[in-house]
Amino acid sequence: MANSQFEKMVSSLSSLPGVGKKSAYRIAFHLLRIEDRQFGQLIASLQDTRDNLDFCQICGGLTEHPVCDICNSEKRDRGLICVVEQPEDIFFIENSGAFNGTFHVLNGVISPLDGIGPEQLRIKELIQRIDDDAVLEILLATNPTLEGDATASYIHNLIRDKGVRTTRIAHGITVGGTLEYADQYTLGKAIKARLTL
Amino acid sequence: MANSQFEKMVSSLSSLPGVGKKSAYRIAFHLLRIEDRQFGQLIASLQDTRDNLDFCQICGGLTEHPVCDICNSEKRDRGLICVVEQPEDIFFIENSGAFNGTFHVLNGVISPLDGIGPEQLRIKELIQRIDDDAVLEILLATNPTLEGDATASYIHNLIRDKGVRTTRIAHGITVGGTLEYADQYTLGKAIKARLTL
Repeated sequence: MANSQFEKMVSSLSSLPGVGKKSAYRIAFHLLRIEDRQFGQLIASLQDTRDNLDFCQICGGLTEHPVCDICNSEKRDRGLICVVEQPEDIFFIENSGAFNGTFHVLNGVISPLDGIGPEQLRIKELIQRIDDDAVLEILLATNPTLEGDATASYIHNLIRDKGVRTTRIAHGITVGGTLEYADQYTLGKAIKARLTL
Repeated sequence: MANSQFEKMVSSLSSLPGVGKKSAYRIAFHLLRIEDRQFGQLIASLQDTRDNLDFCQICGGLTEHPVCDICNSEKRDRGLICVVEQPEDIFFIENSGAFNGTFHVLNGVISPLDGIGPEQLRIKELIQRIDDDAVLEILLATNPTLEGDATASYIHNLIRDKGVRTTRIAHGITVGGTLEYADQYTLGKAIKARLTL
């Protein structure tokens, strides 16, 4: 059963994010079973996307052109910049339909243990945008982790004298969730951030 | 943000088993970020495996040769055949280290709603093996679903006059699990199948 070629394929698939050993086996067998046409389409779609997509010169988001559709759009509020960790975060926020500003991708968070300092992130590009454009608000939407919170604080301190309003995305109980299943930290933050009705 | 090429890639990835929309986004961004060399290796490994692997003429399992290593091995007990639904089930059983017989892949289960009858499965090949070889025991290891149970019953009825012992894989409480989290059907089966100490 030690089929080196098959095991190499499984191990390649296991390296994808969110794909464990068992999922990798399931995906591998699926790829062996599908028709040539379907397999060819999948490979071509991966290859084409990689060849043709790039990251936006302004926000760092995904784009087919030098500047992305959001940065180019006249309908988006350029006075409001939402700062996110990764290009994919833009998709998730766009999906919510709740945001009409522009984005700025940091490409990571400050993480001394991993040797990542502010200079490795796209922070100076953010400062440049604040200095050049008429930016009114910076919404810090880094993840609510130790590193995400620290990065948000760092940026907040860096720009506090620039006359720009700095906001942080709200943390609280999941919509549809119950107090019982919320962890203590989230519950604590939800109580501190309580709203007057 | 409606990037047709990228969305096509995400939708291709979503078609893989166990990969939902959010995982597909995560995998897509991962594939855009990795180096050319790493991406090339992944694609080559998928392509090579697909080009070189086939299914064993005897058991229907995965192999690089006409007959797989298990069917070819002198060390395996050919008097015991474990009947499974899919080729990947062989991997999971081999991984347990608890089985030293050979396998027979049905390539599915009887499922009238999906239009799958016994004749679409590799059942006549199984009967042939029982008639040709000195088979002593058939271990039916189809999944404990309605269709898996029905398929096991069907095969059991079909071979009951052949003087071969037919067994079914045991169902019960997961090792390390608790009664509290076992569903009522599993618990019912575990009680019925209780063992004398």
